[in-house]
Amino acid sequence: MSDITRFSVSIESELLDLFDRLITSRGYTNRSEAIRDAIRRQLISREWEDGEEVAGVITLLYDHHRPGLSEELTEIQHHAIPSVISTTHIHLDAQNCLEFIAVRGSGGTIEALADRLKSLRGVKHGELAATSTGKKII
Amino acid sequence: MSDITRFSVSIESELLDLFDRLITSRGYTNRSEAIRDAIRRQLISREWEDGEEVAGVITLLYDHHRPGLSEELTEIQHHAIPSVISTTHIHLDAQNCLEFIAVRGSGGTIEALADRLKSLRGVKHGELAATSTGKKII
Amino acid sequence: MSDITRFSVSIESELLDLFDRLITSRGYTNRSEAIRDAIRRQLISREWEDGEEVAGVITLLYDHHRPGLSEELTEIQHHAIPSVISTTHIHLDAQNCLEFIAVRGSGGTIEALADRLKSLRGVKHGELAATSTGKKII
Amino acid sequence: MSDITRFSVSIESELLDLFDRLITSRGYTNRSEAIRDAIRRQLISREWEDGEEVAGVITLLYDHHRPGLSEELTEIQHHAIPSVISTTHIHLDAQNCLEFIAVRGSGGTIEALADRLKSLRGVKHGELAATSTGKKII
Repeated sequence: MSDITRFSVSIESELLDLFDRLITSRGYTNRSEAIRDAIRRQLISREWEDGEEVAGVITLLYDHHRPGLSEELTEIQHHAIPSVISTTHIHLDAQNCLEFIAVRGSGGTIEALADRLKSLRGVKHGELAATSTGKKII
Repeated sequence: MSDITRFSVSIESELLDLFDRLITSRGYTNRSEAIRDAIRRQLISREWEDGEEVAGVITLLYDHHRPGLSEELTEIQHHAIPSVISTTHIHLDAQNCLEFIAVRGSGGTIEALADRLKSLRGVKHGELAATSTGKKII
Repeated sequence: MSDITRFSVSIESELLDLFDRLITSRGYTNRSEAIRDAIRRQLISREWEDGEEVAGVITLLYDHHRPGLSEELTEIQHHAIPSVISTTHIHLDAQNCLEFIAVRGSGGTIEALADRLKSLRGVKHGELAATSTGKKII
Repeated sequence: MSDITRFSVSIESELLDLFDRLITSRGYTNRSEAIRDAIRRQLISREWEDGEEVAGVITLLYDHHRPGLSEELTEIQHHAIPSVISTTHIHLDAQNCLEFIAVRGSGGTIEALADRLKSLRGVKHGELAATSTGKKII
């Protein structure tokens, strides 16, 4: 548990007014929470730049009719333990699958794994969503 | 099933050589596949711009000790059916959770849902990874 | 001139400490200024989303040996008045030019102009840097 | 001068048809040029990742009434020679200035310079647009 502290920000009234309207439209009911979220986003970007242990999700859109593809995806993931935590599979329609692979490790290792999966034939699209393990990001 | 066709690209030899080295380093064994992936990425961006039905994953990092947060996350997701398809939960450590919510619908609806979830107190970080339903993106 | 006001943010001590170290490494000597910059960035993104009058710079890298290209770039820019404010030209080497076009108008108009310039043969790379007219962003 | 070569891409007819419609809407009259542009964009990202000599433009939006700011911006730029090539100044209105600084050097040096300029008080917004010197990107 971390102590809670306070700091104050000086700002032009008009700018604060615009900000309040913006965050309300994005669902915030509390200005401090919107500021903390902006702070956390910057810290998480820095964790990735600095090569610290991070977490993320690799999203793959693929055609499960492609021969051998499901096996190859599974094989690569098994060899990528412990970076790979778990996988969820969604059946989008008769042909298309969406697979989310939860990952954890250094940014470089995770990006290399995502590159390898995205480059397979039959994988139509791949994305890596970067987040944090939350250890430092309180 | 779609017919396969071919088209040819004229390009400076040096540029092609640089491209081949780049895609090899990213895991591609086939130049056509690298070109098709670049094409699909552009088409998926356009699906989001044009408000078509798309798919994606909302990634949330949160502290499950925050009173009422898990209940609120569940409540919001239940009310967001049919945009929400499924949710996967990863226990990162004693305090931190990673939750992936598979979503499907118009880009605007999905972005509004992601905004609402990200703005909750206790949610440390949220990201929306944009992909496609794959219906048009062959 | 706008009045200056103050607001206070409650935050975990550890998170604030991490933020202070981050902004120091990015050149900030003042925490309020770092927060105001984060607020302004969000407001400027919103100006672009909302189709308000914005400003920006289109950066073009091109080969001035390509016959007719310089004339075509000039012609398009003249027809894009009043969106186009001014152009700066840098001679990178015997072959390569960097051109910066200052623009102002609705986001849609500016993006369409940037697309048109980037798609010309001989233009190797184009980028649109999005900023604001500063009218509302105090 | 580089030799021109050709390569062929196999692709689903429907996907090619969608791509042709997309690039036409973005101003392309030639499919090879759209493919070459996609290839160049990937190579330029890699130049930045790999720490090669790159080029770019730092865009600053600032309030020229802020005492001492113009002098400080000039001072920093003079000390950043040879990274700084030239500067263009646009008078947006009675208060707001847009300044574009053409830069060249390693990605790290340029990013550090951009961070320093963006963090100054009175600078409302700063952006770094990344491009290439074009030496390798034919």
